[in-house]
Amino acid sequence: MPTDIEIASSVTPDPSQRLRQSLGFPQNVEPYGLNKAKINYSKLDPKAKLILVSAINPTPAGEGKTTISIGLTDSLAKIGKNACVAIREPSLGPVFGIKGGAAGGGHAQVIPMDEINLHFTGDIHAISAANNLLAALLDNHIHQGNDLRIHPKKITLRRCIDLNDRALRNVVIGLGTAGDGIVRDDGFYITAASEVMAILCLSRDISDLKRRLGNILIAYNVDGDPVYAKDLKAENAMAILLKEAFKPNLVQTLEGTPAFIHGGPFANIAHGCNSVIATKTAMTFADYVVTEAGFGADLGAEKFLDIKCRGNGLAPSCVVIVATVRALKMHGGILKTELAAPNAEAVSRGCENLKKHIENITGVFGLKAVVAINRFTTDTDDEINAVKHACAVLGVKAILTDVHQNGGAGGRELAQEVVDICENNTNPKITFPYTLEDGIKEKVSAVCQKIYGAGKVVFLPKAKTEIEKITAMGYSTLPVVIAKTQYSFSEDAALIGRPSGFTVNIREIQLRAGSGFIVAVAGDIMLMPGLPKIPAAYNMLLNDDGTVSGLS
Amino acid sequence: MPTDIEIASSVTPDPSQRLRQSLGFPQNVEPYGLNKAKINYSKLDPKAKLILVSAINPTPAGEGKTTISIGLTDSLAKIGKNACVAIREPSLGPVFGIKGGAAGGGHAQVIPMDEINLHFTGDIHAISAANNLLAALLDNHIHQGNDLRIHPKKITLRRCIDLNDRALRNVVIGLGTAGDGIVRDDGFYITAASEVMAILCLSRDISDLKRRLGNILIAYNVDGDPVYAKDLKAENAMAILLKEAFKPNLVQTLEGTPAFIHGGPFANIAHGCNSVIATKTAMTFADYVVTEAGFGADLGAEKFLDIKCRGNGLAPSCVVIVATVRALKMHGGILKTELAAPNAEAVSRGCENLKKHIENITGVFGLKAVVAINRFTTDTDDEINAVKHACAVLGVKAILTDVHQNGGAGGRELAQEVVDICENNTNPKITFPYTLEDGIKEKVSAVCQKIYGAGKVVFLPKAKTEIEKITAMGYSTLPVVIAKTQYSFSEDAALIGRPSGFTVNIREIQLRAGSGFIVAVAGDIMLMPGLPKIPAAYNMLLNDDGTVSGLS
Repeated sequence: MPTDIEIASSVTPDPSQRLRQSLGFPQNVEPYGLNKAKINYSKLDPKAKLILVSAINPTPAGEGKTTISIGLTDSLAKIGKNACVAIREPSLGPVFGIKGGAAGGGHAQVIPMDEINLHFTGDIHAISAANNLLAALLDNHIHQGNDLRIHPKKITLRRCIDLNDRALRNVVIGLGTAGDGIVRDDGFYITAASEVMAILCLSRDISDLKRRLGNILIAYNVDGDPVYAKDLKAENAMAILLKEAFKPNLVQTLEGTPAFIHGGPFANIAHGCNSVIATKTAMTFADYVVTEAGFGADLGAEKFLDIKCRGNGLAPSCVVIVATVRALKMHGGILKTELAAPNAEAVSRGCENLKKHIENITGVFGLKAVVAINRFTTDTDDEINAVKHACAVLGVKAILTDVHQNGGAGGRELAQEVVDICENNTNPKITFPYTLEDGIKEKVSAVCQKIYGAGKVVFLPKAKTEIEKITAMGYSTLPVVIAKTQYSFSEDAALIGRPSGFTVNIREIQLRAGSGFIVAVAGDIMLMPGLPKIPAAYNMLLNDDGTVSGLS
Repeated sequence: MPTDIEIASSVTPDPSQRLRQSLGFPQNVEPYGLNKAKINYSKLDPKAKLILVSAINPTPAGEGKTTISIGLTDSLAKIGKNACVAIREPSLGPVFGIKGGAAGGGHAQVIPMDEINLHFTGDIHAISAANNLLAALLDNHIHQGNDLRIHPKKITLRRCIDLNDRALRNVVIGLGTAGDGIVRDDGFYITAASEVMAILCLSRDISDLKRRLGNILIAYNVDGDPVYAKDLKAENAMAILLKEAFKPNLVQTLEGTPAFIHGGPFANIAHGCNSVIATKTAMTFADYVVTEAGFGADLGAEKFLDIKCRGNGLAPSCVVIVATVRALKMHGGILKTELAAPNAEAVSRGCENLKKHIENITGVFGLKAVVAINRFTTDTDDEINAVKHACAVLGVKAILTDVHQNGGAGGRELAQEVVDICENNTNPKITFPYTLEDGIKEKVSAVCQKIYGAGKVVFLPKAKTEIEKITAMGYSTLPVVIAKTQYSFSEDAALIGRPSGFTVNIREIQLRAGSGFIVAVAGDIMLMPGLPKIPAAYNMLLNDDGTVSGLS
């Protein structure tokens, strides 16, 4: 099979004018290069059926959630539906690091693949600039006299950069002479982990964007009182830097189906899905909108539902849970090196992980679900039947798809099931695991117990103090974002499958007043990845004609 | 008079298709938003008359070099010429700091002004990303075992960011735990001062771009031997990040004249003018191309001629030297607070600065010159006559222009003189102050003595050692870039007017093996500006309809 970039390069994307016609867009398309566009449409009327693609807990075997999202959309188009996909935009960090790009794979890709994986339309750079302008204004304020009496040891804001660069995790800045600022500890997050990224993705309009940017908690002063970005008069300049980035990006799949790719927040420290404005724009023009949430359903789908949907009156008519036989085998205890050997029993054991996710979606959230088995040629009939059987017990269909190999044609059955579910689910309603009025502890505990299956939730002393402080500041009605490993329902990455009775230890609580959520940290969360010994960057080639090789 | 952004916003730019027709472009226009485009044209045949706009040494009174460059181009168009301007793109640092934007002023602006001053087409972000990927690969290499035996105290590469942020001038990175890289001193330059910026602007094609990126000297190893970017296999990944940024940007003036805005290197640490590829593209399609070099003619024009022109077989048919009565009065010893009072005698004294620049252009470089007096309403006839008289003595015309107030109509006389000079100068030839075969010391001394008027050039011990090392490494035939204050011909910013007999002390020599020049440092050079007490960012407003106020 050819490589992803070879397949991606074999199709010339439709220029944006033709593409917009397929969605019936009015005159609000701003071209970016020959194959990308931004949509600047403010009269949003999101009426489409929304389909969320989520997954089991990720394993090193790979699940292919983005590939299924793109392929399913092509499949919906193939069976005659006016469909559109809305997903996150890739970060440069993983592209040059270990993971590669995030534009799907095989015959289920969005194009132009190289540009989407590189700077795309510049959104992430704009976010870095807005975040780092705020940091520069903060340090400049202290340097110029510090009228706000900011405590240099109580600064919560971090700088950011859209690269994997472990050397920037912990830095000391402001060294040099008297004119070179004040010395203090700082650090860089990868831009996807910055609060500005979350804000861009959650803001309804420019006025909401400015309000949220102004509300970023950047520090405490010497009295312990909060200092916000608006105290530095930073929100307008930041919003100016974000005004183009705030417009959703329109591209297409290999098969010509419209694709919105906009925003890309982490799913541990943030809510992990593409922008509200892109989802709503897609839902205004298409009849079926497929969207995706980061990591497994415990992290991504939970946040998508509790934060993005709750805050915007959205609800998915159908949730697709992606699994592979190989990954389920790993959840069943098989090592990655031994996945080639057929083992239906291990698959059955691993299905416990899948079943918990299904139960969460259907039981806790009260939504309709279908399982997509992302097929590999090595899968045996016995193994596939094991998955189907496990799902059938819960009243959910598990459907084989091979969009990676066959594009939209490989997901017709899945698309038909999704359509059937949507047609019979005209007014989906989410049952939330907590209400916003619950206390912070209750909200965190509800997610840990109902969604993760934890036996006990312990709030360590630091977290308790922070909860009291944030409650006193009046922010206790915000939803919660739990930052934990994506590999397990628990806080221990090694506990694969379906662990139960475990304890979740909440070590730290952080207020994201601009994003509008409270982060509860359960474990060490990587906010700045590093590069591997042989970075993907080493294998790339820019040919003299401007084409790229070695991008995956 | 309305503000720059009010004037800029009053004109709707031509969509790129119409604009490209005026230049007769073939199908190589890639739109970026509704009002910007990139030109991807490889068969370059630069045949236009090239006009360089330079200036006296800058003063706090302001000279308006970019405004004259843009206005003159509109004036050339007004008198029936197929004209085009090619200038540098603005950095975000000054936009949010103290200087404001760099898109001209009044009725001589390039538009869309706000977007050109903000992220434009993302070029500068791409440069930051390429530079910082190289830095991440370098630190990762050391962290992963350091096969190249790089000495962590002998790293010459710096990270960069496109903001004014003094707190990042001197930092320590790699703090934290064993997994967080190695601890070392580092610092951030503003992106315009990075070598990658200079390389983008000097590269002829993608193959040349990769070669130059690979040749960036990033460190020395423990034996003292040089380590280059190519030793880290970084040049292809970096070039991939730069592949779109490498294409020149096409916009227009307020009057609809085509404008290339591409690349923006500093004129002290680098060569200070827009990209070779943009200038050559403009010269392929227009008959008259106006371009600009940074700071005064001692820094900008010298480097434009000795580096950009020499390396690419270009020569300007005419050099325009911009001056204002106000600035000349300051060179004549008048304080900024007392500029309102007429003082023709001070203007005459200040003209000594202007005359030295004229003598350099006509006498040293052997080129044709004209002086453009950028008119202010407060200028008196006596003062203007003082300028005209000073120039007439040297056989050069000084022509009043008021393009700021009147657009292209305000520079007709200047345009006619430029055309007359060009028509009578069919084969311009530059007499270079040094040849590439001269030794490094001889080259630096030639510029200091012939162009600056220095009496003596002293190479401090560190510089001497570096010269020996660079010569032994085989780089002595590169041209030189002298980094000194822009405010004076000398290394002392306070020595305005026309100082003579002064000593230039060369403290340090740096090899820019990728850019292809040797930097000789004479004084403290600011490579990362700071923000003022009241940054321009504080006065900006993003309106709810997405329009910007307060950008200047």
